[in-house]
Amino acid sequence: MPEKLTLGLIGAGRIGRLHGEHLARRLPAADLLAVSDIFVDAAQRLAADFGLPHAYADHRRILDDPAIAAVVICSSTDTHAQMIIDAAEAGKHIFCEKPIHLDLAEIDRALAAVEKAGVKLQVGFNRRFDPNFRQAREIVASGGIGEPQIVRITSRDPAPPPIGYIQVSGGIFLDQTIHDFDMARFLLADEVEEIFAVGGVMVDPAIGEAGDIDTALITLRYRGGALGSIDNSRRAVYGYDQRVEVFGSEGVVTVANAKPDTAVHLNSTGEHAALPLFFFVERYTESYLAEMREFITCVREDRTPPVTGHDGRIPVVMGYAAKRSYDENRPVKLSDIE
Amino acid sequence: MPEKLTLGLIGAGRIGRLHGEHLARRLPAADLLAVSDIFVDAAQRLAADFGLPHAYADHRRILDDPAIAAVVICSSTDTHAQMIIDAAEAGKHIFCEKPIHLDLAEIDRALAAVEKAGVKLQVGFNRRFDPNFRQAREIVASGGIGEPQIVRITSRDPAPPPIGYIQVSGGIFLDQTIHDFDMARFLLADEVEEIFAVGGVMVDPAIGEAGDIDTALITLRYRGGALGSIDNSRRAVYGYDQRVEVFGSEGVVTVANAKPDTAVHLNSTGEHAALPLFFFVERYTESYLAEMREFITCVREDRTPPVTGHDGRIPVVMGYAAKRSYDENRPVKLSDIE
Amino acid sequence: MPEKLTLGLIGAGRIGRLHGEHLARRLPAADLLAVSDIFVDAAQRLAADFGLPHAYADHRRILDDPAIAAVVICSSTDTHAQMIIDAAEAGKHIFCEKPIHLDLAEIDRALAAVEKAGVKLQVGFNRRFDPNFRQAREIVASGGIGEPQIVRITSRDPAPPPIGYIQVSGGIFLDQTIHDFDMARFLLADEVEEIFAVGGVMVDPAIGEAGDIDTALITLRYRGGALGSIDNSRRAVYGYDQRVEVFGSEGVVTVANAKPDTAVHLNSTGEHAALPLFFFVERYTESYLAEMREFITCVREDRTPPVTGHDGRIPVVMGYAAKRSYDENRPVKLSDIE
Amino acid sequence: MPEKLTLGLIGAGRIGRLHGEHLARRLPAADLLAVSDIFVDAAQRLAADFGLPHAYADHRRILDDPAIAAVVICSSTDTHAQMIIDAAEAGKHIFCEKPIHLDLAEIDRALAAVEKAGVKLQVGFNRRFDPNFRQAREIVASGGIGEPQIVRITSRDPAPPPIGYIQVSGGIFLDQTIHDFDMARFLLADEVEEIFAVGGVMVDPAIGEAGDIDTALITLRYRGGALGSIDNSRRAVYGYDQRVEVFGSEGVVTVANAKPDTAVHLNSTGEHAALPLFFFVERYTESYLAEMREFITCVREDRTPPVTGHDGRIPVVMGYAAKRSYDENRPVKLSDIE
Repeated sequence: MPEKLTLGLIGAGRIGRLHGEHLARRLPAADLLAVSDIFVDAAQRLAADFGLPHAYADHRRILDDPAIAAVVICSSTDTHAQMIIDAAEAGKHIFCEKPIHLDLAEIDRALAAVEKAGVKLQVGFNRRFDPNFRQAREIVASGGIGEPQIVRITSRDPAPPPIGYIQVSGGIFLDQTIHDFDMARFLLADEVEEIFAVGGVMVDPAIGEAGDIDTALITLRYRGGALGSIDNSRRAVYGYDQRVEVFGSEGVVTVANAKPDTAVHLNSTGEHAALPLFFFVERYTESYLAEMREFITCVREDRTPPVTGHDGRIPVVMGYAAKRSYDENRPVKLSDIE
Repeated sequence: MPEKLTLGLIGAGRIGRLHGEHLARRLPAADLLAVSDIFVDAAQRLAADFGLPHAYADHRRILDDPAIAAVVICSSTDTHAQMIIDAAEAGKHIFCEKPIHLDLAEIDRALAAVEKAGVKLQVGFNRRFDPNFRQAREIVASGGIGEPQIVRITSRDPAPPPIGYIQVSGGIFLDQTIHDFDMARFLLADEVEEIFAVGGVMVDPAIGEAGDIDTALITLRYRGGALGSIDNSRRAVYGYDQRVEVFGSEGVVTVANAKPDTAVHLNSTGEHAALPLFFFVERYTESYLAEMREFITCVREDRTPPVTGHDGRIPVVMGYAAKRSYDENRPVKLSDIE
Repeated sequence: MPEKLTLGLIGAGRIGRLHGEHLARRLPAADLLAVSDIFVDAAQRLAADFGLPHAYADHRRILDDPAIAAVVICSSTDTHAQMIIDAAEAGKHIFCEKPIHLDLAEIDRALAAVEKAGVKLQVGFNRRFDPNFRQAREIVASGGIGEPQIVRITSRDPAPPPIGYIQVSGGIFLDQTIHDFDMARFLLADEVEEIFAVGGVMVDPAIGEAGDIDTALITLRYRGGALGSIDNSRRAVYGYDQRVEVFGSEGVVTVANAKPDTAVHLNSTGEHAALPLFFFVERYTESYLAEMREFITCVREDRTPPVTGHDGRIPVVMGYAAKRSYDENRPVKLSDIE
Repeated sequence: MPEKLTLGLIGAGRIGRLHGEHLARRLPAADLLAVSDIFVDAAQRLAADFGLPHAYADHRRILDDPAIAAVVICSSTDTHAQMIIDAAEAGKHIFCEKPIHLDLAEIDRALAAVEKAGVKLQVGFNRRFDPNFRQAREIVASGGIGEPQIVRITSRDPAPPPIGYIQVSGGIFLDQTIHDFDMARFLLADEVEEIFAVGGVMVDPAIGEAGDIDTALITLRYRGGALGSIDNSRRAVYGYDQRVEVFGSEGVVTVANAKPDTAVHLNSTGEHAALPLFFFVERYTESYLAEMREFITCVREDRTPPVTGHDGRIPVVMGYAAKRSYDENRPVKLSDIE
């Protein structure tokens, strides 16, 4: 295997810092050389905290650096596609946070650039690397439940994002459910053909005023015949609720929430235990680390990353299908979206 | 409170024997005087086993007996409506197994007869009396989860019934899902307005050849805005899978399967525990007893039974809505069925 | 198999009523013909409630009845041994509540009478018939944990009995721990050789003033080399705490408490679930039924009952060993008690 | 708060590498400047892996370095006490792995040196920092269970150490149980007065030939009146079994094992789930990190570390009391050991 992988980080926001810390401290095969952010002081702070040699305002400084072999794109969503194109043209391997873009034509432009450049691209659907979901997938893949027949995904956030974020998020299906669409594909290694979505504004009227919904229930029909169901809420007062179940001809596998501790307390009023880990930073830390480790390994070993550009594109199509289904109150085929 | 309630049992099949044993042995307020069955030796055997004074071939012998105040109808489904009419006209209070009938007009005839006679009618949706689901309902009713937003019901049988039964069952939605439709109404004390159903033949092709499906996923839209999801299978190899969840603005309540024992065994290959209780007789014994106790109390105390004729009718409407939705692959309003 | 087993019930107190109901209503192979109690109105009430032909003040009326083949002794503890002797001399098979007596010489007299008469005797260590503990025993017996090495028994009551009862109970080791001593023998099918007990008065000073303790921790050394630990409290505010664990060379089996329902409620303050079933009537109903069914079967099939007089005697020896160990703060051999 | 804490690491074995990685990568407040090991290439490898400026064969090079404020002692157990003395005399703050020494006089010499030098000393009883046990302690400390009455600790290793290690370990009570003795003190914040230990050779006869036992059951009597029970095995085939329970006048708190994932798989043979995390590196990673973070904070904020030299000494006394109790088959007071 070659030397350490040299990387540059584009974007020093919350998720950028998370990846930055992992690259700088917890992934010995990574050599993080630079960070850029249009807010240069954020980049500088990150560089200082994690001991990076360079901090830039302009991500081109990273793309122009011949010592850097790969980039990790954590800038704002609307810039992802162009960043991918720029990075591909600069010959860099790319890890890009999800989604690639909310516009399918933009995604296609980005994927074409990646293909033309022959660089590797991994999209940040980190939940595939969660040890709990991974174990479920392994049980399914190894035949432990026979032929998959019914998938159930519960995915509820502890609290909605700010209204300003919701306004530019593309809507719940493209912002929150998109992770579950990826999970639905991952668990069965099968494609969804048709989607039916219902939903409503139950958490906060302001979300409705912003043109979005905050609660949704989505039915999936897989190509292979299996059925799927996803439910979403922007607010579970008891914390981050992330569970899946796959039922099949020979059994079922169920993934429960992860908890901060195993202590159970009984007193005269009942039995009490901890709530689920609060949100994605707590619940998915290991998965962020694992996806990046896998990206680095794939680049170093010249293997195809486990979450491809294609894998990044399809959940966006699913999001549009869900949106149209919700708007028109009828099932919508993915093939109608393209 | 008056004396014991005198009862006659119509139908000495499996469910008839179950109710017969409870009435004869476990419900001190009941005085089971007679049983009838068109197979008179089944009636005689039941009478002998549980010490009943009378066994008849003709249920009219029960209806004509002035010493009998109430009847428990466990005959075949297609006879329920007429039995109700006959019993009502004879002035007997009525406990009737579900469904009242598969034909809505027949149901309406039966309910009209009950109303005219002024007798009490309770329909046998026993799962409402399961201590697990009852506790969930109590948490919801007491405001423990705030405003209900999402209902999830998983209801899978351990094995499909014989094809001969399936052929006359009315189809999965009227035979299996009907219990879940009742549960969906019970948990929220709210009505469903619209249903969307998908499904397929995944368990046994013979079920498809009989014109039915064996796997289904049903979306519910409640009048109050909540959303619901039911999944059904005719065969879960690990046993009877009966779980519900209600999520709301202030919390969630989840009901897990009941198990025969609490022993957990760890060895070098993993952690192992018992499968769920095998089927409805094991899982719902207590609920059959509790529903009958409640019926007897309501008659003796002149109160309205907890599962009325109206409660018996609506799940049939829901079954037809689900069937039409499945056939036409579109959401169907309950108001379109009437 | 012969006809139904005809029985008489001696003692119409709480446990007598429980057995009486089971014999009269839930055990078709039993024919309960009579009940006696020195408080004859209690006997009459029981006879009326469960439809028994005879109610007596004097238990000799039962013993003298040639139609009665077996007796169930539920009278006060100090009368058990003499009742056994009388019943044996009358040629009746005997089910006797635990303990046989608190005096070993009296026990030996009773067992000698049983042996001389050639009747069957089963002692009411009902917990062996609890489906949870039974499953643990079966896993141990089938080799699922290899060679047993460590046994842990937690046995805590929800509330102490009245002080008046404690004064005549023989002390915690002979009254409460006696069940756990039986369980310790049952789980391993091995004998205990040596006992070390510590304890104290932590629940109620009045228990101390009555010469007893209310909290205890007992170490067992088995003949086969395994070690055991029992902890007892007279008051667990969260209810009846009844758990066991057996650890061995190839694994471990753990039995958790049984609960009234499986509902789990999460809100902003935590995860909440039901407390264990409150006390022995709720937790052990099935085991009382199962032990009696087994007694009846053994008599009818002429087999040795599963809990013999010997099994009834040894836990009393263990109770004395524990008491001496506690008093002298040193390990005591069972062989020192005889 | 002052600058980062500068540290040197003494010992580059398994536990040294674990602390080294945490200090170098995961504790931003630490500045790890050097490592020493009598096997200098181990030190050099560690320095290279984690980017440390210096690697020495002689720990005196660290003690002599005025730029280093604190040392982390991970050398072999028999050197700990002298290392503490040397470090104290050099004016370094000290984190030392447990146990300080197996000889109480040596411990006292070391503690005297620490006191004379006025440096801080924290002993590595990391399990106090496990989030599960910590939560149990917090529930106890906050009065959630009222007055503590019974403590149960189950502590079983997945596999015994090599015989060569066992020969110099001081025996099971000083090597394995010592952690549980510390846990017993931590959970109640109370001292143990008397100990009774039983045990045997059940895992491997070679352990017996080495003069040790491999299975033990220890009774504790606390000064405040509570009772405790610890059970140990050198081999649980299902992995690392680490559970505690504290029962009191107002409730109970129970800590279950931690698991690698929450997936549960049901098929026709039963319900299956993951085994506990395999051994201390997996189970206690977070606790090793947390104890070191706490040490660094205490030094930087001039506070007394949470696990003092006194806390390091008492479990050794308890180990000797247990050993004597086992040898003489009688309860032994800690006051008899000094």
